[in-house]
Amino acid sequence: MSEVREKAQLAKQTAAVLGKLTTNEKNKALLEMADALIARAGDIIEANADDLRRGKENGTSSSLLDRLALNEERIRGIAEGLRQIVELPDPIGDTLETIERPNGLHIVKKRVPIGVIGIIYEARPNVTVDAAGLCLKTGNAVVLRGGSSALSSNRKIVEVLHEAMERTALPAASLQLIEDANRSSVDEMLKLNGLLDVIIPRGGSSLIQNVVMNSTVPVIETGAGICHTYIDESAQPDMAAAISLNAKVQRPSVCNAMETLLVHEAFAKSHLHSLAEAFKERNVELRGCARTLSYAPWAREASSEDYATEYNDYILNVKIVDDLDQALAHIAEYGTKHSECIVTENGQNAERFLQEVDAAAVYHNASTRFTDGFEFGFGAEIGISTQKLHARGPMGLPALTSSKYVIIGSGQIRE
Amino acid sequence: MSEVREKAQLAKQTAAVLGKLTTNEKNKALLEMADALIARAGDIIEANADDLRRGKENGTSSSLLDRLALNEERIRGIAEGLRQIVELPDPIGDTLETIERPNGLHIVKKRVPIGVIGIIYEARPNVTVDAAGLCLKTGNAVVLRGGSSALSSNRKIVEVLHEAMERTALPAASLQLIEDANRSSVDEMLKLNGLLDVIIPRGGSSLIQNVVMNSTVPVIETGAGICHTYIDESAQPDMAAAISLNAKVQRPSVCNAMETLLVHEAFAKSHLHSLAEAFKERNVELRGCARTLSYAPWAREASSEDYATEYNDYILNVKIVDDLDQALAHIAEYGTKHSECIVTENGQNAERFLQEVDAAAVYHNASTRFTDGFEFGFGAEIGISTQKLHARGPMGLPALTSSKYVIIGSGQIRE
Repeated sequence: MSEVREKAQLAKQTAAVLGKLTTNEKNKALLEMADALIARAGDIIEANADDLRRGKENGTSSSLLDRLALNEERIRGIAEGLRQIVELPDPIGDTLETIERPNGLHIVKKRVPIGVIGIIYEARPNVTVDAAGLCLKTGNAVVLRGGSSALSSNRKIVEVLHEAMERTALPAASLQLIEDANRSSVDEMLKLNGLLDVIIPRGGSSLIQNVVMNSTVPVIETGAGICHTYIDESAQPDMAAAISLNAKVQRPSVCNAMETLLVHEAFAKSHLHSLAEAFKERNVELRGCARTLSYAPWAREASSEDYATEYNDYILNVKIVDDLDQALAHIAEYGTKHSECIVTENGQNAERFLQEVDAAAVYHNASTRFTDGFEFGFGAEIGISTQKLHARGPMGLPALTSSKYVIIGSGQIRE
Repeated sequence: MSEVREKAQLAKQTAAVLGKLTTNEKNKALLEMADALIARAGDIIEANADDLRRGKENGTSSSLLDRLALNEERIRGIAEGLRQIVELPDPIGDTLETIERPNGLHIVKKRVPIGVIGIIYEARPNVTVDAAGLCLKTGNAVVLRGGSSALSSNRKIVEVLHEAMERTALPAASLQLIEDANRSSVDEMLKLNGLLDVIIPRGGSSLIQNVVMNSTVPVIETGAGICHTYIDESAQPDMAAAISLNAKVQRPSVCNAMETLLVHEAFAKSHLHSLAEAFKERNVELRGCARTLSYAPWAREASSEDYATEYNDYILNVKIVDDLDQALAHIAEYGTKHSECIVTENGQNAERFLQEVDAAAVYHNASTRFTDGFEFGFGAEIGISTQKLHARGPMGLPALTSSKYVIIGSGQIRE
C-alpha cells in the first residue's frame, strides 16, 4: 500500500475516537503540543537548517528561504498560535437547530467534525502546526502534505507533536504527514474519496488550481485575491487615499491586498495626480489605463493581463471609470470574488455596490485588508474561502465542522 | 460556441438581476408558472406522449415509463409543488450574523444566492419544474440537463415556463434546458468552472458517481442510501417490528428505505423468526447471514456484495450481531452516511449509537423513512445530501444559498 493511502487510513481510524473527545481533552493536548515545540526548539531548528542548506544549494529565492526559516522566536510564535486555538470556543456538539414535529419526533441538528481533512501546502513549516491545531481542535483527523523543501522541518515538527500527543487523549495517528516528496503523492491525495472528506489547498494560485481541477475529493478553494478599491465621485479625498494606500502597501504579499484601483473620472480630475504621487513615494509601480497616464506620466500602460494578475507585490493597476456601472463591470470581469471596496459618500451607490458585487467580503469605506479571521473576531483561520459552498470568506473553526441530524422517537413510523 | 456553454453564459448573465428580485416578485413568477403548466397541460401531455412512444420502442421498462408518464393529475401535482415553494420563507437577504468590531467596523453576514446551479437528472419531468422552482425562489439561475428519454416533455415544459416568465420580473434566461442528448453535454457541464457554481446530480448511483468523479465544478452529492436498522437486545418487540417493517416496505424504492436489518442475537432468539415471517408476508425477499438462516430457513445466504447493495426493492439483508460494537462496525463498513436507526430501550446504547454513527441522520426508535424535507418541516427539498460539506441531510431552500460579508466602515485602515 502507498504511504498516502496507508496514512489516510490510519487517520480515518481515529475519527470515531476524536469525535468523542471533550473540549478539555483536546485543549490539554494542544497545550502539551505547544510546550513540546518550545522544549524541542533546538532540534527543530537543526532540522530546519537542513532544509535551508538544501534550499540554498538549489538556488531558492531569498524570500522563499525567509518563509522557510525557523528560529527560537518564530517557534515561540507558532506555539503561541496553538495556545490561541485553545482559547477559541469548541464548536463540536453545538446545537444548530431544534425541531419538534407534530408526530412527536424530536430532531436536533448538531455540529460534528468533518472527519479527515487533507491539507496541501507549500514550504511554510508554520502551516504544519497551525493546520494541525485547527483540525484537531474541531475533532478532525488531518493528513498534511507540505512542500518538499520543508520536509526535514515538517518531519521533525510532526515527530515532536506526536511525542506530545502520546501523553494525551488525542491519538497520535490523527495527525499524519506525507513524506513522499514526489508530485504523485499529491495526485494520489486528490483521488482519495472515501478516506479524505475534504482537501484544503493553501498556497499560490498554481497549487490551488491544480487541486481544484484535479481533485475528486471535495475541495475548499482558498486564497486567490485580485481585490479592487473603487473610489467613487463623492469619496472623501483623505479617506480614499488612506484606504487605498493601506489596501496596497500595508502588506502587499497577502490575498486581501488591493491589486487594482478604480477611480471615478471626476475624482481623478481633482485627486488622482496627488494620489499617484503618494503611491510613487511608497515605491509602488503603477500600471494605468490610457487616461491614468495623463495624471501619472511615469506609469506604464496596463494590459488586460495586468488586470487579471494577482501581483502580491508593490505593483498596482489604476483604471479610470466613467461611473459605478463601469466599476462594477470591471470587478465582475477581473475579480476573484475575494474582497472588494467602494469609497463613497453616496449611500445609494454604496448600497448598489454592496448588493451587486459578488464577493466573499464587500466593503464600504474600509480597507480590504480586514478580510481576515482575526480582524473579524474569529481568532485563527484555516484560510479564506473564495468559493460559495460550505464556507465563504475567512474560515474559523466552524468552517471545519459538518452537521448531523439526531432524531429521537418513541416508535414513530411513516404513514 | 456549444449549446452548453452558451446557455450557461446566458444563465450567468441573469444572476445580478435575480439577486435583486424581491420575494414578492419571485413568488408572483412562480405562481404564474404554476398557472401556465395547468393551462397548457394538454400540450405537455402531447409532448410527453412522444417520449413514451419512443421509450416503448426502445424497450424501456414499465417502471421507468411510469416515472416518465404525465397526465392531468400529475401536472396538477407538479403545479401544486410550485405553489408550495411560494409558501416557503425566502432565505435570501437574511442576516446570519452581525459583528461589531472594536475599531467600529460593522460586519453583517448575509444570505445570498449561490449563482448558477447545474442540475443533472434522469427521466423524471417533474424534476424539471421542481428544481427550477427551488433554484429560482432562492435567486439562483439554473441549467437543467435531464435524461434524453424525457427530452420532448422537458422541452415543452420549459417552453411553457419561459412564456410565463416573460410576463414577470424573473428573466426567462435564468432557466436553461440543455437539449443536447449526447453524453458529451453532461461531460461539458462538469467542467464549466466559472460559469456554474455548483452541480447537483439527482438520480441513480451511477449518474451520481459519474458526476462526483468527473466534475471540476463543486458538487453536492445526493441520494445513495444503504440504510440500516439495528434492533438492540432491549428493544420493544412490537416497536422493533413496526419500525423495521415500515423502513423496508412503506416505500422500498427510495433512498431512506432500509436495506439491511441488524439484529442483536438475544433479540433474534426470541423474535427474529416471527419478524422474518412478517417480512415474508409482505413479499420481502430475505438474504441472511448464516445464523439468520436458522430463524428463516427460506432466506438465501447474503454475500458481502449484498450488504453493499442499495436494492430499492422488496429485498432485505438480515444479519445477527453479538452486540452494539458489531452493529456499529457493520454500519461503518457498509453504510453510505445517509440514515441509520437503533431500536433500543437502553439509553446508553442509544446515546453511543447516535454519537458514533457517522451519517446525515441518526435515529433512536423511529423509522429511517423520515429523512425527508417535508417530514423535517422544511417543505420541498432539492435532495438529500450524503456529503459533509455545505449541507448534510435533507436540503431545503437554505442549502441553495451562500453568504457574503458586508462590511461598513468610516475610513478604517489596518494598522
